[in-house]
Order: sequence, then structure tokens, then C-alpha cells
Amino acid sequence: MSTDPLPLAEALIRAESVTPAGPEVFDIVERTLAGAGFAVERMSFASEGTTPVENLFATRGSGRHLAFAGHVDVVPPGAVADWTHPPFSAAIDGDTLYGRGAQDMKGAVAAMIAAALDWAAADGPGQISFLITGDEEGVAINGTMPLLEWAAAHTRFDAAIVGEPTARAVLGDTIKIGRRGSLSAAVTVEGKQGHVAYQERAENPVPALLAIGTALNLPLDEGSEHFAPTNLEIVSVDVGNPSWNVIPPRASLRFNVRFNDHWTFPTLQAELTRRIEEAAAGARVSIAWEPFLSDCFLTRDEALVAAVTDAVEQATGVRPEATTGGGTSDARFIKNYCPVVEFGGVGSTMHQVDERTSVTELRTLANAYRAIIAAVLSA
Amino acid sequence: MSTDPLPLAEALIRAESVTPAGPEVFDIVERTLAGAGFAVERMSFASEGTTPVENLFATRGSGRHLAFAGHVDVVPPGAVADWTHPPFSAAIDGDTLYGRGAQDMKGAVAAMIAAALDWAAADGPGQISFLITGDEEGVAINGTMPLLEWAAAHTRFDAAIVGEPTARAVLGDTIKIGRRGSLSAAVTVEGKQGHVAYQERAENPVPALLAIGTALNLPLDEGSEHFAPTNLEIVSVDVGNPSWNVIPPRASLRFNVRFNDHWTFPTLQAELTRRIEEAAAGARVSIAWEPFLSDCFLTRDEALVAAVTDAVEQATGVRPEATTGGGTSDARFIKNYCPVVEFGGVGSTMHQVDERTSVTELRTLANAYRAIIAAVLSA
Ligand SMILES: [Zn+2]
Ligand SMILES: [Zn+2]
Repeated sequence: MSTDPLPLAEALIRAESVTPAGPEVFDIVERTLAGAGFAVERMSFASEGTTPVENLFATRGSGRHLAFAGHVDVVPPGAVADWTHPPFSAAIDGDTLYGRGAQDMKGAVAAMIAAALDWAAADGPGQISFLITGDEEGVAINGTMPLLEWAAAHTRFDAAIVGEPTARAVLGDTIKIGRRGSLSAAVTVEGKQGHVAYQERAENPVPALLAIGTALNLPLDEGSEHFAPTNLEIVSVDVGNPSWNVIPPRASLRFNVRFNDHWTFPTLQAELTRRIEEAAAGARVSIAWEPFLSDCFLTRDEALVAAVTDAVEQATGVRPEATTGGGTSDARFIKNYCPVVEFGGVGSTMHQVDERTSVTELRTLANAYRAIIAAVLSA
Repeated sequence: MSTDPLPLAEALIRAESVTPAGPEVFDIVERTLAGAGFAVERMSFASEGTTPVENLFATRGSGRHLAFAGHVDVVPPGAVADWTHPPFSAAIDGDTLYGRGAQDMKGAVAAMIAAALDWAAADGPGQISFLITGDEEGVAINGTMPLLEWAAAHTRFDAAIVGEPTARAVLGDTIKIGRRGSLSAAVTVEGKQGHVAYQERAENPVPALLAIGTALNLPLDEGSEHFAPTNLEIVSVDVGNPSWNVIPPRASLRFNVRFNDHWTFPTLQAELTRRIEEAAAGARVSIAWEPFLSDCFLTRDEALVAAVTDAVEQATGVRPEATTGGGTSDARFIKNYCPVVEFGGVGSTMHQVDERTSVTELRTLANAYRAIIAAVLSA
């Protein structure tokens, strides 16, 4: 009989762990995996100006090596009074398990571990590791990144599964095999302040900024085989002039681009710079690229993608579509070490009041991870 | 021998009167004019939410009636330590009189009064009144407007001279016979907030706002016989989104138009509304017109304009150009009661540190007002 992920999911939810997660929730993971013969390492990473963050690495077996990646921190519960059941009580009502982290992603962590416990009990082939972080929902710099660096010094992975919610409507409908990249910048036009009644003595920076914004909003490409078209959003435009009769000295806008495999950072930055400078038409303009960026990636390991696709269909009855949509995830770090596929449950209530999951779906998710283990490690 | 305006200008500058002006500076005006046989009324006007403001009305004579309008409040001195001479000391250095208000406009008030004293001493023809306010540099709602209403209940003017600085380069080069109107509004586009990675579920209001701003900035006309082209300045654009990955729920801009006699409020508002709605292309947009507006006006009394032009040339040796440039002034209120022409001195240092005037120019300005009195009241 296979291991039920429910008791572990309940225990993880009850171990309140608003990001960054404290030791209690890691203790549960450590006890569970160590009990199944996994070698467990706990480690805390810190960097300047941030709180140290707990992380866990666990491994068992040898040979072909599959890593499961996940996080046990959660976003804050928000207005606790609005919850039908207290957010850290892991209440069950019929087939529904309530609690912060039920979907994102303590449920999936429990399902991955349940699947791995069965593999360990059967002394299955290959090697399984867990990369569990405590700050994915926070600044995310003392988690997966240093954990991967540490692990890379000790081992090598053949494939990784990230368990973030991926289903768009029903469990099994989607796996993610890549992500668009993300690039942000602030653009500032310098003008010359003056009175509106004497506009000839001033230089209003706003018209140039409007032209720049309009040029940035033009299409960048039409998409590619695996990716949607690159999309740029101007997230803010700010002048901050409180007056009605003063021409402001400067104006700025900020944008974020989610870009596909038509582009690399240098080619995209060059094209955007060209558009900005051309639209500025001689106005003094400066561009400040944000240091927080992520490259576009696509998992090109077709055998892995096929194995995961078949395994998910086998467990859920739904053949998943391999997509590249949505935001960034820790997969962007893992892809530097091994081919990575993201597969998790439904995320319909994640980050909301009354976050909850179907218990049936949680068990089906564990079955899917079992099938993935079998498919990847027997290959 | 004609009255020297200098001692009065010095006394007015020493009566520190940062807006709104207190009683001291009005006491000086009252004493001076009453001593020349003017009937003087002091009155304080107040409206909800503002400080009461002192004003003065003085009149002498009968028949054809000329009003001089001016203000005895001043803008703050700014960084007092930066002044070569203390801002309220009325220091004289060679031919230069230093002090806050030397140009804007205690010097001109002194010159007008000096001219009127000579007219009174000679028992000149007609009637002269003074409309002196204490809040022109402030909110300007408890000054000229109620003062004119009060005066209109007692008398009727044939012409008015506003003594604000009008010279562009040298004394006498410019009189103003009208002003562009002013109209302001805030435009807000409502979108739908969302994550940049899922832009299809959100509606970014910024592209519509950029289109609206671009449409507003297109030319409105090419100017007219007496007026420069209508000019619209977008003074601020504001979204205020602190995030890089959130599409904002709304975006707004604010603009001010200085418009000429091609337009009335209704025709201009209709044209701007049409541009905004067309550019919004279906986005939800709202327009909030500001209550602070002023109509465009042109003084069509050709005899008055010719008389003032000739008088200014006679006194200064420079034939003035009749213009309509610059910002608004109290002339916009006076034009509802009688034809109004603006003529004053050089404004090169007004509102600045070391505001100052040439003593020679101050005396020439008094001569010009003498010539205006003669030209207007003997007509
Ligand atoms: Zn997550
Ligand atoms: Zn003034």
C-alpha cells in the first residue's frame, strides 16, 4: 500500500512558517526522510543585509539522480478573521484540506515525500534528493541558489522536478518546461523646469517620455515554437509634480519585459536602448537597468519531458501540455545544473484567504510523483 | 517739480508685507493718498477656509474715471543670507534700490501714487481711483475680486491700468492688452491590476494614458492676430506603483492649457474631451476639470491702447509693443468692469534673491504714469 501524503501535509501546515521558515517545519521534513534512510543535511545561508535562512538537502541511493525541489515557507495569511478555518489548523472539511501552504506548496512537498518514501521502502533504483528551501516566498537569495551551489560541490543531478502549482484548470493539465526571461529598467528624461505660461523658457520632459513609452509598447516579436510573444509592461510613470502651473524638471517610467528565446539579455537591451534613444529625439535620457533579472530558458531534454508527460497522464488521466507561461520560479536557478520540469497541483487559491486543496487531488499528485520517479529512474 | 517716487518706494519696502500683507503697508498708502485729498476706504475680505485680507480703495475727483490697480504684498524673501542687502532694508547702492517688492510691485505702486499726487496737486481733470490689494501673491481670492465687486456698487471705471512688471528688456518696450486663458484638468484611466507575467488577466492603463497624452500634445491652433498659439503642457503623469511585477490599476495625468481667442471654455473643453475619448479607444477614462480657470481676454478699446502707447513712448523714448503673452494677472478680473491695460517696469529680478530696481527707471516709470493720466483723463 502506498504512503498517504495527507498526514504529512497536515503536519507541515500546522508548523506555521511564514517566510522565512523557522526550524520547526524543517524538523518534520528531516524526521520523515531520515526515517526512510535519507542522509539529511540542514544548512543556513546568509548574505549581507538579510536574515539567515534555513535549507535542507536530503539524498538516498546511487546511480541515475532525480532531485525534487520545493519550499516550506508560506506567504502571510492576511486577514485571519476572514478564513473559514484558522490558516494554520490544517482543518479538513469533507474532501477539502484548508490551510496556508495547502497548494503553495506544502501539499506538493508532502506528495513528493510520500512518493519517495515508497521508492525507498521498495529499495527502488537510482538516487533521489530533496532540495528544500525556506525563503522562496521572500527575498529568495538565501535559498535555492546557495543550496544548489553547495549540492553541486557534492553531487550531480540528471533531472529535477519543481513542485510549484502548475495546473491551469485540472490536475495534470500542465507541466512547465521553461520560462520567459525577465528584465526591468527605469527610464528618466531630464527637462528644464519653468512656468507653464513661459513654456519657451522651459523644456517639458513629458512629451519625450510619452514617445518613449509608446515606442517601448510596440510588439517585440510574435512568439516562438515554445513561447508566447515577448511582452513589455510599463508598470509605472512618475513625475510627482504637485503644481498646475510649473513644467516639471524630469519624468520617468519603469517597465518589465517577459521575453522569449528570440532574445538574450544583450540583444534585448540593445533593441530597447535603440527604441528609447530614437524616441527621445535628442532629449536627455538615462536608462537604469534593474539588477533583478532572469534569463529565458527551455528544457531541451526531450526524453525527460516525454517521461514526465507520460507519467502525469498515467496517474491523472489527463495528458499535460508542456508550456512556458507564467512568472519565474526556482526552476530558473536549477536549469543551470540539470534539465528541469515543473509539475505540481492546482494553484487556484494560493496566496489567498482560505487556501485549500482537495485531499483526493493531493493523493493523485503523490501518485503522479510516484510515476515520475519510476519513469525517470528506470530509464 | 514732480513728486519723487523713491521715498515712498523705500517706505513701502521697509513695511515688510509677505503675503497676505498686514496693516502697516496699507497705513502708508492711506496716509499718502489721504494727504492729497483722496477719500480712502480700508476693507478686509474673508472667505471660508482662508485668512481675511486687507484691501484699500481710494478715489478723488469726478468725471472720466481712471483706476490704478496694484498689490502691496510680496513673495517671501527666500534665503535672507543670500541677499547683498537685507530684503526689507530698501538699501540704495548707486542708482539701485534693493528690496523685496522693488520690482513686484511696490516700486510701481509708488510711481503710480507719485503721478497721482501731482495730478491732485494740479487739480487735474477727471477722477482717479486706486485698487490696492494685499493677497495678489497668495490665494488671490480675498483681494481684487471682492474689491472690484465692492467698487462696482459705488462707481464705474472708464479705464484701468495694472502696474505689474511688463517690460521684457527695457522699460517701455511692452504693454499688455490681454491674456491667454487658462484651463486645467486631471485625466484618469482605470485598468485592472494584475501580475506582469499574466498580463492577459490584467488591463494596463498606461498605454491608453500614453495615447491620451500624445493626442493632447498635438497643436490646437496656430495663434491669432493678437495671440500666440494655444499651448498645452502636461505638468504631471502619475501611477505611483512601487512594484516591478504588478500591472497598476490606474494611471493619471494632469495638464494646463494656455489658450487664445480661437477658443471659449465650452469649445476648448469639447475639443480636449473628444481627443481624450478618441485616444482612450474604449479604456475607461474620467476627466476632472479644475475649478481654477481664467478666460482669454483682449482689450478692444483702441483709443485707450493708443493713448497708453503714445504716453509710454513719450515718457520712456521707447514705443511699446502691445502683447498678450505671459501668465495671468488681476487684469483678468478687472476686464469684466472696464477696458484694462497692463504697464509696469522691468521684472528681471522679481521673486528672486536681490530683487532690485534702477532708481532712474523708477522715476521714468512715474513719468510714464503721469503721461498716461494726462492722455486718458484729458481724452
Ligand atoms: Zn510557491
Ligand atoms: Zn506682482
